[in-house]
Amino acid sequence: MWTPMRQVGVPFRRFMQTLRTKKLPVMRIDTINPNVLNAEYAVRGEIPQKAHQIERELEHGASLPFTSVLWTNIGNPQQQPILGQEPLTFWRQVAALTEYPALLEMEPTARDAMFPTDVQERAKQLLDSFGSVGAYTNSRGNELVRQHVVDFLLERDGYVEDFNNVYLTAGASAGVQLLFQVFFAPNQDALLIPTPQYPLYSAASALYNVEPVYYQLQSNRNWDISFDNVREQITNARASGVNPRAIVMINPGNPTGSCMTKEEIEQVIEFAYNEGLVIFADEVYQANVYQDERPFISFRKVLLDMGKSSDPKKRDMSEIVELVSLHSISKGVSGECGRRGGFFVLNNFDKEVDAEVLKIASLGLCPPAQGQIGVDLMVRPPREGEPSYDLWKKETTSIFDTLKSRSELIAKRLGQLPGMKVEPAKGAMYVFPRMHLSKSASDAAKKAGKKVDEFYSMELLEETGICVVPGSGFSFYPQYLEDGSSYSFFRTTILAKATDEMVERFVKFHLHFRERFP
Amino acid sequence: MWTPMRQVGVPFRRFMQTLRTKKLPVMRIDTINPNVLNAEYAVRGEIPQKAHQIERELEHGASLPFTSVLWTNIGNPQQQPILGQEPLTFWRQVAALTEYPALLEMEPTARDAMFPTDVQERAKQLLDSFGSVGAYTNSRGNELVRQHVVDFLLERDGYVEDFNNVYLTAGASAGVQLLFQVFFAPNQDALLIPTPQYPLYSAASALYNVEPVYYQLQSNRNWDISFDNVREQITNARASGVNPRAIVMINPGNPTGSCMTKEEIEQVIEFAYNEGLVIFADEVYQANVYQDERPFISFRKVLLDMGKSSDPKKRDMSEIVELVSLHSISKGVSGECGRRGGFFVLNNFDKEVDAEVLKIASLGLCPPAQGQIGVDLMVRPPREGEPSYDLWKKETTSIFDTLKSRSELIAKRLGQLPGMKVEPAKGAMYVFPRMHLSKSASDAAKKAGKKVDEFYSMELLEETGICVVPGSGFSFYPQYLEDGSSYSFFRTTILAKATDEMVERFVKFHLHFRERFP
Repeated sequence: MWTPMRQVGVPFRRFMQTLRTKKLPVMRIDTINPNVLNAEYAVRGEIPQKAHQIERELEHGASLPFTSVLWTNIGNPQQQPILGQEPLTFWRQVAALTEYPALLEMEPTARDAMFPTDVQERAKQLLDSFGSVGAYTNSRGNELVRQHVVDFLLERDGYVEDFNNVYLTAGASAGVQLLFQVFFAPNQDALLIPTPQYPLYSAASALYNVEPVYYQLQSNRNWDISFDNVREQITNARASGVNPRAIVMINPGNPTGSCMTKEEIEQVIEFAYNEGLVIFADEVYQANVYQDERPFISFRKVLLDMGKSSDPKKRDMSEIVELVSLHSISKGVSGECGRRGGFFVLNNFDKEVDAEVLKIASLGLCPPAQGQIGVDLMVRPPREGEPSYDLWKKETTSIFDTLKSRSELIAKRLGQLPGMKVEPAKGAMYVFPRMHLSKSASDAAKKAGKKVDEFYSMELLEETGICVVPGSGFSFYPQYLEDGSSYSFFRTTILAKATDEMVERFVKFHLHFRERFP
Repeated sequence: MWTPMRQVGVPFRRFMQTLRTKKLPVMRIDTINPNVLNAEYAVRGEIPQKAHQIERELEHGASLPFTSVLWTNIGNPQQQPILGQEPLTFWRQVAALTEYPALLEMEPTARDAMFPTDVQERAKQLLDSFGSVGAYTNSRGNELVRQHVVDFLLERDGYVEDFNNVYLTAGASAGVQLLFQVFFAPNQDALLIPTPQYPLYSAASALYNVEPVYYQLQSNRNWDISFDNVREQITNARASGVNPRAIVMINPGNPTGSCMTKEEIEQVIEFAYNEGLVIFADEVYQANVYQDERPFISFRKVLLDMGKSSDPKKRDMSEIVELVSLHSISKGVSGECGRRGGFFVLNNFDKEVDAEVLKIASLGLCPPAQGQIGVDLMVRPPREGEPSYDLWKKETTSIFDTLKSRSELIAKRLGQLPGMKVEPAKGAMYVFPRMHLSKSASDAAKKAGKKVDEFYSMELLEETGICVVPGSGFSFYPQYLEDGSSYSFFRTTILAKATDEMVERFVKFHLHFRERFP
């Protein structure tokens, strides 16, 4: 592909002459980084791009069967006006004071009416530590915030942490990309990724030239891992000369909404120990769990609990298996995506490797200050008895309950449709319905050059304005049956303010689709 | 290096056994991405790390010849308390209102006393467009802000721009890294980098496995480019099978403080045209120009002006040469490093390549909202007659004048020292003195396993607490003369609040150093 550009000396100059005479740019699709072309990111891919186009058409007065695009493709709770989750008052009050500390010098009566005293205290404490939100912090992130993360980890898991093992990031995605860059030798290493998966993992693998090795989650068994399948995948990969060095776990699951049990997590750790794998535990939905049978339990807790086992091998695993735990302020009940904040914790990592992580983090200088402050507010919410507690409790409970009831509503109404199997989300922010579609739908999709779930999702968008992501966008492809019909999936968020309307539009569309493709 | 990990099947399992028995982690310095090891970033390297250690020792009551570390290694104007530039009131007022819109609903008299009406208007306009600062934006950045960037470019250069050619970023560094990832094929492409350079460029080259080809700026001629030298470097590179596909320009210069003339910029464009190079114009210091002989002129203006030339070849260049222009809110007179905001503009890029840039940008979802708002405030400052104008003008003038006078003070006082040649910064935020040091200094450095400028800078830190970056950190190495003495450089920011004290400490140290190494 690079042959022309790789010619040097005189032939190169002649080539340049041609290039410039033909007015060809230097950077073209056939001369840029080929890894980039292989990266796919459906959450912001073809269907959302079409949705943007439709939105523009609507703005310009186009007459369509609907008046607005319903963005249910991405977990962006505060998107206005369609989703429109309100920010938490406590968060925004602290943020405003750190941005403009002069507000703390207002006339006291007016100030105290506007900002509860615990908000003022928190802002002062943060300002003391940051100096200014306009200054760079340590590349790992502000020290006070990291100390608070350590307190949070102690409370959550029962184990303290060295605050230098905590890195604040511009969202979990930034953390994943940083660690991919540091850990994996391009064109040599591989990575185990679940399917369905959040497509950041496949896209980052493509970009950093890491070989993705997919293992299947069991759609009919709570999306639990099939260790037989993982073992088979890893054996096949190694037999073909590819060596997975890490395994990605998303818990609660995206797009599946599943939750892992303690036993399953322990098995993963044992598996990682035996197979020489680093664990990436993507736990960004840890505060979004809507049932009691499978509460959230962190990989870190299970790992460190194994240190107390009577089995010396388990104690060994506890001290050896390298674990990355990722968290974010974009999800949970805060939904503060725009601030770009999150953190990861490194357990059992080599100090020299950690120094390299720090070095590469420092190329971006530091995470955004308001993202770091968001992490502080997430890990240290108001406590009972503090002035902000009641309002905070009311707001967070309302958001949580709303998410849960929307998930149940969507599952119930869509689940009643013919050919549709839907469960409410156990966790996370998504419902992931399975569809049985007819042979004629398969044929129509094929004719349109699309997979059947992509075809269905695009039709859905064009007929109703509802923007979802087909299962294929999560590397979870349609299964075609012998009779030509198919099973496939799509993901919808549970965030739409007008969930009723969304469901109405959807039901109408689905029935119509089945009439068209019987 | 990877041999053991690349063994597959049964030998692999045996290897794993050994690994786990020896309690070796999976990720080790000899198993991670080797490109990472090659990346060096002196601005946050060994000397700043030592400085952090010294700061901690001082906090714990260590008795040293000084009581504080003077951070002059990095352009972080708002760092407290040593540098302590105050944020611009206008910026922080708008930021606070966008964080906590309830402030707009305060009792009007109190509100208007706290927030000028133009601040309120701006905040409302931004909130209208963002919906919420807690929501993701377009991956290119918020549309309104990008429209304002386009207005700024029109005013600055005299040419409109398609707002889709503008990408908002988390600082210029994030933009550089994004484009490096998209443009360069790992292990195939090369990049022309000036020396001295800002080390982000060499570090990113190492990380993304792009071959750096260094060209020399002329220290004795205003740091102008020697085109003979660039031509020689490119010819040698091609002769050895390496093909530079882009050239980095830093104007105003970092660490040199130099400013380019229109003629020089035009020559660079012509050169890029002839040699098939994309231009990276790092113009983050465009608002930091302290003299009138060489005002800032953007690459974009010169490029587009060439379109009006009577010479058809120049018109051709204007339409063909691919230009990336980078800007940031971290420098200038705002110095808002912690928000992480900036933008780049793409001129003459292929639409397909642009789509790939957008795709890779979308992996990080979007730049931080308050960084984007910072860009808005930078490109649309208050205008004369608006309520915030007078204060904004006063604050920005004061910051600018302070920077200028500190640069002059440092240049004057250090320039009087024996063996030291120093010019005030023409632009940017740095003074870059040249030192002539004795043979005995060279010998002592050698004994300490350091380059002479590194040795000098480390001694400076340990004796005075002043933290600078040696020239070697910018790939600009000491020149050893026949008599064993040397010429070398270091960079200091012009940001220290206590510049007088900094200069005092420095003078004392330098004279003492010359006594020790006569």
